[in-house]
Parts: sequence; C-alpha cells; structure tokens
Amino acid sequence: MMGKFYGIGVGPGDPDLLTIKAKKILDKVDIILAPETKDGKGSIALNIAKEHLSPNVEIREKKFPMTYDVEVLNNSYDEIADFVKKLVNTGKKVAFLTLGDPMVYSTYIYLFKRLKSKNVEMETIPGITSFCAIASKLGIPLGENEETIAIVPSVYYGKGDQKLDSIIENIDNIVFMKASGCIDELIDELETTGHKDGSIFVSRLGLDDEVIEENIEKRRGMKNNYLSTLIAKKNTSVR
Amino acid sequence: MMGKFYGIGVGPGDPDLLTIKAKKILDKVDIILAPETKDGKGSIALNIAKEHLSPNVEIREKKFPMTYDVEVLNNSYDEIADFVKKLVNTGKKVAFLTLGDPMVYSTYIYLFKRLKSKNVEMETIPGITSFCAIASKLGIPLGENEETIAIVPSVYYGKGDQKLDSIIENIDNIVFMKASGCIDELIDELETTGHKDGSIFVSRLGLDDEVIEENIEKRRGMKNNYLSTLIAKKNTSVR
Repeated sequence: MMGKFYGIGVGPGDPDLLTIKAKKILDKVDIILAPETKDGKGSIALNIAKEHLSPNVEIREKKFPMTYDVEVLNNSYDEIADFVKKLVNTGKKVAFLTLGDPMVYSTYIYLFKRLKSKNVEMETIPGITSFCAIASKLGIPLGENEETIAIVPSVYYGKGDQKLDSIIENIDNIVFMKASGCIDELIDELETTGHKDGSIFVSRLGLDDEVIEENIEKRRGMKNNYLSTLIAKKNTSVR
Repeated sequence: MMGKFYGIGVGPGDPDLLTIKAKKILDKVDIILAPETKDGKGSIALNIAKEHLSPNVEIREKKFPMTYDVEVLNNSYDEIADFVKKLVNTGKKVAFLTLGDPMVYSTYIYLFKRLKSKNVEMETIPGITSFCAIASKLGIPLGENEETIAIVPSVYYGKGDQKLDSIIENIDNIVFMKASGCIDELIDELETTGHKDGSIFVSRLGLDDEVIEENIEKRRGMKNNYLSTLIAKKNTSVR
C-alpha cells in the first residue's frame, strides 16, 4: 500500500470550520503528527480536530522548535522531515495538522518544502484563515469593490519601519497577524495614519478565552496572546 | 419558529472544500437564494454546493445585477434584501451561497449590509478563498516569516496607477483577484518590477476548464475568465 503525507489546515478554532475534505482525510489516515506539548493537553490544532479523529488513529508527538534561530529550526525540521519520509515509505498515511491555512504563515511551510525536495507523496488541504473567520463572525467586510487588502505579520515590525509606513499609507484594509509583541507601537502607528478608529483587536476567536476589542487603546501594555489579529480600515468604521 | 438568513462561503470549486459548518446549515435551511442564470444551469456557487443540498430544499432564483452602475446595484440589492426579510419574517431559514469567502470581494457584502441595517437575524459562514486553495493545490507558500501579502482586485487597476506601483514595490507577495480585464497591463507592470518570473496565472481552479500557467506571458491578449487569479512573488520563483 502506498503511503502519503497530508498537511491539513484545521481553521481558526471552531471544529466545524474544518472542510469536508479534511474530515474525509482524517477518517483514513494512520498517524497524526503533532507538536509535543509540555502540559500533555496536546496542541491547539490537535484539540480543534479532536472530535473528527478516528478512534484508532495513532498520535505521534514530535518536538517542534519555537524559535527564530535558523540553525535550530533547520535541524529540527530536517529531522522531522526524515521521520515523516520513513513513515510514508513504510506505507503509512500521515497527517500534520496546522492552525488556519497551511500556506499562510504556517510552520507547515518548513516541513512542506523539505518533503517536496525529498519527493514524498503529499497533498495540502487549505483551511479557513483566522482573518476570514473573524470577518464573518463579526461582520467585517475585508475587501469590497476597489479596496486593497494587506496581510502583515506584525510581530516583525516596530514603529518607524518604512516598509510598514508605506503599506499603511497605500492599502485600504490591513490584517495584522500575530499582533501581540509590538501592539503599543502598532497602535501609535495606526493613530498617526488615521486607521485607529477603524480597528478591531481579536484574540483566539472561537476558543474559550477569546478577546474582541474595538477600542484597541485598551490592549496597550497588555500581554496579548500569540494568536491575535488586528484588522484596520482607513477612514471608516471597521464594521 | 424563528427564521434566519445564512450567508455561506462555498469555497473556490471543489464541493469537498465546503466546511462542515456550511454542510450542517445546508441540511436544515428551507430556501436557497441563487442568482438567476440565463442558461438554466444554475449559478457556479449553487453547482458547487449541489451535492450537499437536501432534496427538499426550495431554490428561489433572483436576478442579481452584474454591473458597476451604482444606482442599478442599489435598487436591485434593496429589492433582494426586502425579499429576504419577508421570507425570514415568515419563519423561513434562507441561505445565500457565495463563491470563496463571503467577506473577500463578494457580492454577498451588498446584501449583508442591507440585511444588517434591517436587523434581520443572520449568520455568515466563512469559506476557503481561491488564493488559499491555489496555494495548497500548487504548493505555493503565500506568506512566511517576515513576508507581507497584498490582495488586489486587479480589474480596477491599469498601468501607471500610483497606488498599484507602491503596492508592488513594497509588498513581497501579491494576489491579484479577478485578473482578467487588465492582464496585458498587469504583465507589463510585473515585468518592470521584477515579479514576472515569480508569477503564476490560475483560472477556475478545481472546475472542469481550469487553467494553470506559470509562463504568464502566454495569457497576453487572451480573453481570460472573470474567475482568474494571478499570484506574484518578488525576486523568487513562485513555488
């Protein structure tokens, strides 16, 4: 029997936001590859998909690096890719679960590139992005007519970044992903450019501890969760 | 019994890319509201969702305007919103199906805004966007690490648009939606900015007549389908 690797986007939190395709694949895989968690509760992506897993599926935990150290990242993902390749070569169907969409700022991309270069048979299943889920749940059109949208991984930008300045100036609606680390600088910037009143801060939508805040000023100085999104619109209310 | 309106994103083409949530709602609604089609074959969104519809569901076709004439648009959508409100008031569960995601350049937004102002009970269900589906199917990471992404409805831009120039210059990866009308000008622009070799043109992914073209030069002068997407990456191959 042929083995295969599946990268599956499980969406942002609600288990029913998995696609029918993801569910069908979860019904037939042998092994779920999941990040090892210290508390034993399992990864967020695994918990979202839990109710859709077959009772017989085997869950294999691996240590996934949470670092920006390129050498550590490379070594870890090389090792995980070798591990996956061995499983697939023995005929196993292996699924890796990832939050949101696999091709939008996902750690899955590291694994995908390595497995592709090793010619491992694989398939990627798209998922609902956090920003699409937020937009639907809160009634925020992300883009209409001639509007442009930017998606910016804000954790990398601080105040005064010229590239960010230009994006904020020239794009109508901006989605800041991972809007945790630099939230104060981001609020300052949005105040200057007239986006602040058209902004909304959302954290862990659909999970037990979700935060929805239209007065983004209240998030200043807060220890915001890594899974935070800030949507900003120019010269208009956000919804 | 309480009526309710549902706006459902059916994704880009593959019926299995509907979410489990969309499927559950389709199982319980009384009426599907669909655009009237001249050929009697039904709308694209309706055809995608067809296999998930309950056999007893009633399909009500309405004429949806395909125009940029604001007055015609406004009148038509006012009329459709009144129609929906009446149905919901009589206790009907009504679903409107829309391609991709309802909050990303969808005509659903016109209807959503009107029904919201009329206080109609409603819920929007996010969908897989065309660009996420393309990225997964073709193995194109849309954004990783510090990269920024722009989503641009290219049909509105011609060559020499300063806003577009600035976007292309300052954003790493760009998704051009509805890349049909101005394809020649767009290719010229991408050639100038060094994006051309990192570009891919995709039309009607997952449908019978899909087009996937990495040599975008071949799309010059072509009558491209309205449902076309062009993904461009700066200084790199697209996948």
